[in-house]
Amino acid sequence: MDSVRTVADLAEKARFASRTLSTASGAERKAALEAIAQALITRSSEILAANELDMVNAREEKMHPQMQDRLLLTAERIAGMADGARQVAALPDPLGQVLNESTLPNGLHLRQMSVPFGVIGMVYEARPNVTVDAAVILLMSGNAALLRGSSTARNSNEILVNVMRDAIASTKISPEVIQLVPSEDRATVKALLTARGKVDLVIPRGSAQLIRMVVDEATVPTIETGAGVCHVYVDEFADIDKALPILLNSKTHRPSVCNAAETLLVHKNIAPTFLPLALKALTDAGVALHGDATVQKVAEKFGVASTPATEENWCTEYGILEMNVAVVDSVDAAADHIAKYGTNHTEAIVTENQASADRFIALADCAAVMVNASTRFTDGEQMGFGAEIGISNQKLHARGPMGLAAMTTTTWIVTGNGQIRS
Amino acid sequence: MDSVRTVADLAEKARFASRTLSTASGAERKAALEAIAQALITRSSEILAANELDMVNAREEKMHPQMQDRLLLTAERIAGMADGARQVAALPDPLGQVLNESTLPNGLHLRQMSVPFGVIGMVYEARPNVTVDAAVILLMSGNAALLRGSSTARNSNEILVNVMRDAIASTKISPEVIQLVPSEDRATVKALLTARGKVDLVIPRGSAQLIRMVVDEATVPTIETGAGVCHVYVDEFADIDKALPILLNSKTHRPSVCNAAETLLVHKNIAPTFLPLALKALTDAGVALHGDATVQKVAEKFGVASTPATEENWCTEYGILEMNVAVVDSVDAAADHIAKYGTNHTEAIVTENQASADRFIALADCAAVMVNASTRFTDGEQMGFGAEIGISNQKLHARGPMGLAAMTTTTWIVTGNGQIRS
Repeated sequence: MDSVRTVADLAEKARFASRTLSTASGAERKAALEAIAQALITRSSEILAANELDMVNAREEKMHPQMQDRLLLTAERIAGMADGARQVAALPDPLGQVLNESTLPNGLHLRQMSVPFGVIGMVYEARPNVTVDAAVILLMSGNAALLRGSSTARNSNEILVNVMRDAIASTKISPEVIQLVPSEDRATVKALLTARGKVDLVIPRGSAQLIRMVVDEATVPTIETGAGVCHVYVDEFADIDKALPILLNSKTHRPSVCNAAETLLVHKNIAPTFLPLALKALTDAGVALHGDATVQKVAEKFGVASTPATEENWCTEYGILEMNVAVVDSVDAAADHIAKYGTNHTEAIVTENQASADRFIALADCAAVMVNASTRFTDGEQMGFGAEIGISNQKLHARGPMGLAAMTTTTWIVTGNGQIRS
Repeated sequence: MDSVRTVADLAEKARFASRTLSTASGAERKAALEAIAQALITRSSEILAANELDMVNAREEKMHPQMQDRLLLTAERIAGMADGARQVAALPDPLGQVLNESTLPNGLHLRQMSVPFGVIGMVYEARPNVTVDAAVILLMSGNAALLRGSSTARNSNEILVNVMRDAIASTKISPEVIQLVPSEDRATVKALLTARGKVDLVIPRGSAQLIRMVVDEATVPTIETGAGVCHVYVDEFADIDKALPILLNSKTHRPSVCNAAETLLVHKNIAPTFLPLALKALTDAGVALHGDATVQKVAEKFGVASTPATEENWCTEYGILEMNVAVVDSVDAAADHIAKYGTNHTEAIVTENQASADRFIALADCAAVMVNASTRFTDGEQMGFGAEIGISNQKLHARGPMGLAAMTTTTWIVTGNGQIRS
């Protein structure tokens, strides 16, 4: 009950303060972000000192080294956060955009205009950079931010929020638009997810367990981010000179992220030439292979190690150098496999045939289809959005990388001179 | 468990069949709607006979006359449904629209294209026309439909679905894209709301209780429709000759619908002239009044009946001829009241002052703001969308009247010639 009260109070403060954002000009919001960027640099030593407290705890609790690396702040990383804030400030203002406009026969004038959501909650793990990255995107899109990070990053998050709030206190924006939700108690997450009417949207960023919990518990609208079981389909009409680099880049460039590929699908007609090359290249790159029956035979024949792929393998987002490989009969069969095991994130086809590409696009049912390109391009920065608050793999509202525009909703503004319905 | 299995089976059939929609041309989808329209007319007598079975039960069970009227089909109403299908078929194709397009420095070509969701569930009450209206909107936007109507309309819904399925069996679209979810068992609603991964979206249409249940139970993404506690704010700079007709039309034109007004807010500076006129006009129109302290005094002075408005009154969507009235100090105070008691649906301001209008627009936080027009204009047909599957009063994905475009999501199509990330 206390957590519910705490979150409700923070949300109410944030809601009231958010009016200073919804009525601010783009220039005023940019000024707030600039102030934040400056303050991060000026107060770097304070931030590093607080982060060191978190790091001491992390080392004592023997946190996984990879997690420790995510928790760690350095002067360079702080400068990167400040730079990120300035980049967001330089983007086109997402608010006040007129998406549709018309005048009706009765003289009513209609405008559909982009406006902020209001209050947006973020639930994330022990990455203090998210505290700043999320806050600046939300502020620039006119939204108040309720930030619920991990308790292991508590000291870092507290100082970062204080620095940001102090910075915008000198601008026209109320510092109350940034609220840190206490992380000592897990119940505040639940409270945030069920603060219906008080919080307009919650975005989870983190592990599959976190996302699943959010989906199960939330009554507030949420945007699911993250999980990526991505496929590379090498069509019978593929150019092998393109297929091989795309495959290797999709799997090995950065295997821990959601747009890395987990499964290779090869058309049966190109398998005799492509499969031996692919299996060899993947193995040379250190990728452990799981194959279907056909692939197993080819692997054995060419002396490449692989184990039989299980149902669990096909569904797994490895995040490491492991990959499933299957041979399929057609574009439709590839789409069937993807429909069964994919997560609607990114699917790539390598083909020189437009009909194959079109069919794949029509059936792939995902946030991004790559035609003759690496799955790794599903990324806000790569796609030219300039900033990204996450990658949505739901179909509602936003699909794929979410930039500033995804953090807005719309209002219909209907202007008349006394019209009534008859 | 059986309901879960039943819904999963129907969703799988619908998903597979939906490929005949996602790969169909606009002309092929239009042909399916035309076939449905024709079949509805040709088979009217069958439909009326089945509806009569439902009506017999309804009369036996002494269903409320208003509900009986909603359940009743007539030759004229069936013709209206057929006409609706033809109107939807005549709208611009919502699929394949390119919403964003660019070429990146690395040569990758990006297109954000509108595509269907896939499988959409509808949960609604005893209004058989929704069975057809929803199916045709979903089909035209490329989606398979899982229709879960009320058991009291069972016979009507069964024949309508059979007629539609038979009609499209002669086209390129698979009849399996329309599935009627059994309504005998309430558990099928829960099963639909939790068929995550099998159903892409569920839209509830009906009572506040239904919507609330959907919000609480659903793990599938949903779009909340319906509840409307709408306000008319008469600003100090209002033209009284516009304010009075707008107020009366907003409240009395059709009080049972969600875009009817429930509360009148009057700026204190115009209250001395406007309030007596308004209270009298509302009373003359048969509207029962609930006032704040100031309003109570004015009502008493002018001999108009009113009771003190309670907290519950301010929150209530009456649906009948009752209205709350309050005097407020400013645009901001009006916005405060609306933020506290409103449902983010439609808010009207009557003013001749642009600054008041702009401030109200920035603070009203709703699907539609009416400036000098009746709240009754928040309506897909009135706003020129041609068809409407409901009015969203959530902020995610679609806000306000939802036409064909709201039933689509997007895919990023990224076309390269072998690009990889470095």
